[in-house]
Amino acid sequence: MKTLNVAILGTRFMGRVHSNAWSQAPKFLPGGIAPVLKVACGQDAGGTATFAANWGWQEASTDWRAVIARDDVDIVDIALPTHLHHEAAIAAARAGKHIFCEKPMAVSLAQAQEMHDTARAAGVVHYLNHNYRRLPAVMLAKRLIDAGRVGRIFHWRGAYRQDWIVDPAFPLTWHLRAETAGSGPHADLNSHSVDLAHFLVGDIASVSCMTASFISERPLAGSGSATFSAGSIDARKGPVTVEDAALMHVRFENGAIGSFEATRFANGRKNQNTFEISGSDGSIAFDLERMNELEFYDHRVAAGERGFRTILATDPSHPYMEHWWPPGHIIGYEHGFVHAVADVLAAIDHRQAIRPDFADGVRVMRVLDAGLRSARTGQRVAVGPTEGVGAAATAGA
Amino acid sequence: MKTLNVAILGTRFMGRVHSNAWSQAPKFLPGGIAPVLKVACGQDAGGTATFAANWGWQEASTDWRAVIARDDVDIVDIALPTHLHHEAAIAAARAGKHIFCEKPMAVSLAQAQEMHDTARAAGVVHYLNHNYRRLPAVMLAKRLIDAGRVGRIFHWRGAYRQDWIVDPAFPLTWHLRAETAGSGPHADLNSHSVDLAHFLVGDIASVSCMTASFISERPLAGSGSATFSAGSIDARKGPVTVEDAALMHVRFENGAIGSFEATRFANGRKNQNTFEISGSDGSIAFDLERMNELEFYDHRVAAGERGFRTILATDPSHPYMEHWWPPGHIIGYEHGFVHAVADVLAAIDHRQAIRPDFADGVRVMRVLDAGLRSARTGQRVAVGPTEGVGAAATAGA
Amino acid sequence: MKTLNVAILGTRFMGRVHSNAWSQAPKFLPGGIAPVLKVACGQDAGGTATFAANWGWQEASTDWRAVIARDDVDIVDIALPTHLHHEAAIAAARAGKHIFCEKPMAVSLAQAQEMHDTARAAGVVHYLNHNYRRLPAVMLAKRLIDAGRVGRIFHWRGAYRQDWIVDPAFPLTWHLRAETAGSGPHADLNSHSVDLAHFLVGDIASVSCMTASFISERPLAGSGSATFSAGSIDARKGPVTVEDAALMHVRFENGAIGSFEATRFANGRKNQNTFEISGSDGSIAFDLERMNELEFYDHRVAAGERGFRTILATDPSHPYMEHWWPPGHIIGYEHGFVHAVADVLAAIDHRQAIRPDFADGVRVMRVLDAGLRSARTGQRVAVGPTEGVGAAATAGA
Amino acid sequence: MKTLNVAILGTRFMGRVHSNAWSQAPKFLPGGIAPVLKVACGQDAGGTATFAANWGWQEASTDWRAVIARDDVDIVDIALPTHLHHEAAIAAARAGKHIFCEKPMAVSLAQAQEMHDTARAAGVVHYLNHNYRRLPAVMLAKRLIDAGRVGRIFHWRGAYRQDWIVDPAFPLTWHLRAETAGSGPHADLNSHSVDLAHFLVGDIASVSCMTASFISERPLAGSGSATFSAGSIDARKGPVTVEDAALMHVRFENGAIGSFEATRFANGRKNQNTFEISGSDGSIAFDLERMNELEFYDHRVAAGERGFRTILATDPSHPYMEHWWPPGHIIGYEHGFVHAVADVLAAIDHRQAIRPDFADGVRVMRVLDAGLRSARTGQRVAVGPTEGVGAAATAGA
Repeated sequence: MKTLNVAILGTRFMGRVHSNAWSQAPKFLPGGIAPVLKVACGQDAGGTATFAANWGWQEASTDWRAVIARDDVDIVDIALPTHLHHEAAIAAARAGKHIFCEKPMAVSLAQAQEMHDTARAAGVVHYLNHNYRRLPAVMLAKRLIDAGRVGRIFHWRGAYRQDWIVDPAFPLTWHLRAETAGSGPHADLNSHSVDLAHFLVGDIASVSCMTASFISERPLAGSGSATFSAGSIDARKGPVTVEDAALMHVRFENGAIGSFEATRFANGRKNQNTFEISGSDGSIAFDLERMNELEFYDHRVAAGERGFRTILATDPSHPYMEHWWPPGHIIGYEHGFVHAVADVLAAIDHRQAIRPDFADGVRVMRVLDAGLRSARTGQRVAVGPTEGVGAAATAGA
Repeated sequence: MKTLNVAILGTRFMGRVHSNAWSQAPKFLPGGIAPVLKVACGQDAGGTATFAANWGWQEASTDWRAVIARDDVDIVDIALPTHLHHEAAIAAARAGKHIFCEKPMAVSLAQAQEMHDTARAAGVVHYLNHNYRRLPAVMLAKRLIDAGRVGRIFHWRGAYRQDWIVDPAFPLTWHLRAETAGSGPHADLNSHSVDLAHFLVGDIASVSCMTASFISERPLAGSGSATFSAGSIDARKGPVTVEDAALMHVRFENGAIGSFEATRFANGRKNQNTFEISGSDGSIAFDLERMNELEFYDHRVAAGERGFRTILATDPSHPYMEHWWPPGHIIGYEHGFVHAVADVLAAIDHRQAIRPDFADGVRVMRVLDAGLRSARTGQRVAVGPTEGVGAAATAGA
Repeated sequence: MKTLNVAILGTRFMGRVHSNAWSQAPKFLPGGIAPVLKVACGQDAGGTATFAANWGWQEASTDWRAVIARDDVDIVDIALPTHLHHEAAIAAARAGKHIFCEKPMAVSLAQAQEMHDTARAAGVVHYLNHNYRRLPAVMLAKRLIDAGRVGRIFHWRGAYRQDWIVDPAFPLTWHLRAETAGSGPHADLNSHSVDLAHFLVGDIASVSCMTASFISERPLAGSGSATFSAGSIDARKGPVTVEDAALMHVRFENGAIGSFEATRFANGRKNQNTFEISGSDGSIAFDLERMNELEFYDHRVAAGERGFRTILATDPSHPYMEHWWPPGHIIGYEHGFVHAVADVLAAIDHRQAIRPDFADGVRVMRVLDAGLRSARTGQRVAVGPTEGVGAAATAGA
Repeated sequence: MKTLNVAILGTRFMGRVHSNAWSQAPKFLPGGIAPVLKVACGQDAGGTATFAANWGWQEASTDWRAVIARDDVDIVDIALPTHLHHEAAIAAARAGKHIFCEKPMAVSLAQAQEMHDTARAAGVVHYLNHNYRRLPAVMLAKRLIDAGRVGRIFHWRGAYRQDWIVDPAFPLTWHLRAETAGSGPHADLNSHSVDLAHFLVGDIASVSCMTASFISERPLAGSGSATFSAGSIDARKGPVTVEDAALMHVRFENGAIGSFEATRFANGRKNQNTFEISGSDGSIAFDLERMNELEFYDHRVAAGERGFRTILATDPSHPYMEHWWPPGHIIGYEHGFVHAVADVLAAIDHRQAIRPDFADGVRVMRVLDAGLRSARTGQRVAVGPTEGVGAAATAGA
């Protein structure tokens, strides 16, 4: 069997999830290429060695530039904090490596555009990991929409709600500083929702946005603080330089309207990524906290028998599920990443494009960027077309 | 027992609901005043007589001005289409009658302000029927918030979704014409949500709004078409002159942010009036389609035991429920109106104010008006303070 | 319009619910007969007079035998504690009155059989108020089953769960004594579920039953203690002589199997009357606490699109709902009684039978009686056919 | 690090799930022992070699007796059809191997007892894989019960509902023949529920049981038919010799009562393993199809604020979850097996017992056996104490 060598950059939360995906994909969704977990790259030597040993990476390194330059690396998996994506992706593309890049794409639209242009010019496969597209229930939504079961779409509502920084004692991690994260939940969470809206509804023409900050300064995080946990805490405080919540209203090019909410202050909502789509022939609703379920309202059913039905997307006929367990045996968060790895490997194998790619990432960044400009001025902002990229929703997954 | 004579203006949907409330209130929530169902006033003599006989009104009339002028009428219940509220309310106030007025208050802010000023000057009790305040679950939400159980409020989301005009063959009833309805779901549905937001969160400082029209013309409705039904349909078409959906983002004066959605194009959502409030110490969620339930997330519960709990608000300890059935025996839509009638009678009896009153109605109209201006310009709009009226949420119900 | 005079016996919980139904039915579901609320009959003169005045009964009485004997009474509504049903119903039947009788039918099968035989011989209309048949969602379930949408039925599960006597300090009301209640939740709650099973599935061939007692003695209730509330409490205790919970397994004559649970010790379940039916072509689930909803799984839908759908049974096409509010505006517990009154009046008007009648009541009592015998011996017990009565489910409502 | 060599017997559904668990456990829940995936054992050489290569087993074999006898095998994982458990387990125990054995334990109580006695005498660690104990939400239920949060338990209801053989064309796989499966859903599904009842409530004193057969014969399955799928189908039919559904009522030794339903004919319920426990101080409900959630009703909360709360058991404070993802990122079906493997390795490492073990398995088999006897006679049957085994629920996990 053909093999390709993978290097992963990043050993925190996303490093773990990606490592698991590289390991699980060939077992559950074997294809024409077997990935070799070649080298893991982290900040400190000891931690990276432990990480590599635990997850089955053959080697460990702390020099990501050197790793990218290695001849025996075919695929670079970028699982770094957002502000490092740009440099790593451009280096990987220039070195002719295929790229599996975590979202949000970059800290600015300009960075994202350059990443896209470079990867495109290099002719490598570039995948941007808006992972929620590849949940079976979300793919089922796409299938229903493409089959015309929802009809003309009137409404999109995307809301991504978390509550992990409600406590004012939560420290100032990299997520809360503009220089490392670009923006707050607008980047982290709205990016997911905008990609799903592109995927399921289509391109966005204009945006109104409102952001809010609820807690203006926080304890400084000690070094080594991991994602979603406090690490050691410094007694001093520093300013939070990203928003705590971001709301958007949009008009799609097809005439639908949409709303977005991204917040880390929705007490009780841990990772509630929801969307609801209303159309002339049906409606669809999804909630990540119950990610194996899709709600579908079929307006064509006889009057008196209509209602939102809960489809448990665990049948072999549901996307990806033939590879997992029997009906009713649910899958979890990490499985979407496994699907992504399998699809990226298949794309490389068949020399095909994969979506979402860097063009889709730029498309998302344009909307987010328009949103931030709207938030500053209070004025609705038009989103220009994304150069060299087709329409969002008409392309397959 | 003291009695007061009531006249009702309007015999359609709201005429029925109000008539039922005047009949049921003294049976289930008897107080110091017994209402006498004196006279019902409609458009055609025959229909009004039938209506009066059915609902127990002693007399029928088609001359609402004459009815208001009658010495033996103490309370005027205005259950007319929106554009008739202004004239009727001002006449009633000038005649010294207490007023029970259906929402939306009027077709313009100016009308609403004049209604308020006139009623206030007349010294009559004036009640504006934002009926959802008086559901037990909503009152329970208010009780929890006032007791500090939600803490500092970060987020409000109000969404009122219906689907009764998704079919393009639905005719051009009065609800779909600006001259009779003022606006569309923005007036009809956002008015409910804004009042609830005022009640539960507080005053709104600024608004961004986006509206949408999905179906631009519809079959002309024949005469006599009733609410929510088509009546006879004319082959000709006419333009829909109100929006089909309206989205708002707001900033509250207390720093919270909010979103509103009002639509008649949410396929599958029949009367889904929902809100969710996120605060530093808890969160609350409500859905009118399950109106006996309140979702409450109590952040003060021990870690590991937290979750949204479904409180079935049917215990005797819940607001109004001691007057109804044993625990678990739910009540329906019309019961909120019964509570309103009982509370209005008590207010008259004890010479107290009642909320929401015309000042609350003006407060809502100011937000809606700001919203429409924002929708036209794409610019965020400030909402000025409502003259002569205290803060929204701090006043009792 | 034709009128008939009604006498109600009983002024407690059921007296209130029935009075409301007699008042509301002609307003919301007017038919060929207008009921006249002639006389209310209770235990004490003062309380009964107040009750009558409140609910619109023209007269009050404390002598129910005299009331039944009155020439100007056409319909007798029996809303008394269970042990008084037998004597009142037989007297009413012998006096040629139509009967609207609350469930459970009687304290013994023998009593029930005699009530049935006497009413049948008298040729009066006799209605036994298993009220939950007449909820729109339940009627919709019946409609779906009759239309073959569920196919061959494999499973019935009925569970009626309450928690109002979990507290050991709850007093020894009439519900907890065998001489007044017959049995406990087996009579009160399983009677509802068995009637629904008869209605929706068919006759029951055999029964296994297990009962349990969790709290063996309770404070004596003072006089005047009302249903579901403690009244004044005596310091002394007395023995609870009915079961606290009753479980049944049954085999239906059509080969389906069923389970029943009736309990007053299901902490947190206030009035959770649920059923779930599994068939070869579909399944149905219902929960009284969300009584406007019906869950329907349609196996004939394409694979991959199947799921339980929540039908909000509030459309005009749903049973009874054209008489109430627009779609999505839910109704409450008491509305089923209003439907029953309207249907009883129509049955009298058209000289038709109505279901459930005393024959249906006997059918239920036979199953409950078999259950109690099984509980005593631990042995499965056959249920004999009910004489002079057709099959349960094939007859219309 | 210490390593132990594992041999797995069985390469179908459970072979896959167990293989995944042996692979994932050391990555996510690393402990003192690293398992080496030594050898996989299946029926045919080619398929087994492929299986071994896919899942990382170093060797493949078709001779399970030889595999068990190997000196370099420390742990034997029995993932075979039920009727093969007995011989394999006894051979493994006699060879001094630790045993990880899939449920149901055996096709008869006598077999199970012998397996237990042999393993105990051999002094090996023996684990019986009632895997649902090790879901975080179920462990949380146990934690709440042990902390007294539910109080005195009144009710247990366990229902395990599937629908995979509703179609009469589904073939006669080994699950549907008594000689290979022992019994039907009574063995397969009630075994899970009874183990959970033992874990959460306690020992069962007596049982009433009713079974049903809905489809008496089915197409013969071709050779090689896998679990939950039809394989090649023979035109001839053969008799189904296990029940299609099994209902039980039980009395626990502590006075609680319980019900069990196990069925493969619950159309629309794919893998709905639910339980609900009612106690004097609270109640708990669980549904495997939403296995990351636990419903908890806390009766000690203030009146008016009580309700079932949905605890999303994904916080680091929840059992096992510190090893997975951040809050709100759910896990799936297979994760329970991963936890089991980690705990078995820890038990071996620390020379401690692990629960459920073969004694727990015998305890379950005694109840199931009593159930089958009750089903045959229609008589309630006492369950004797399980020799040499302490009480079910008081022991830790």
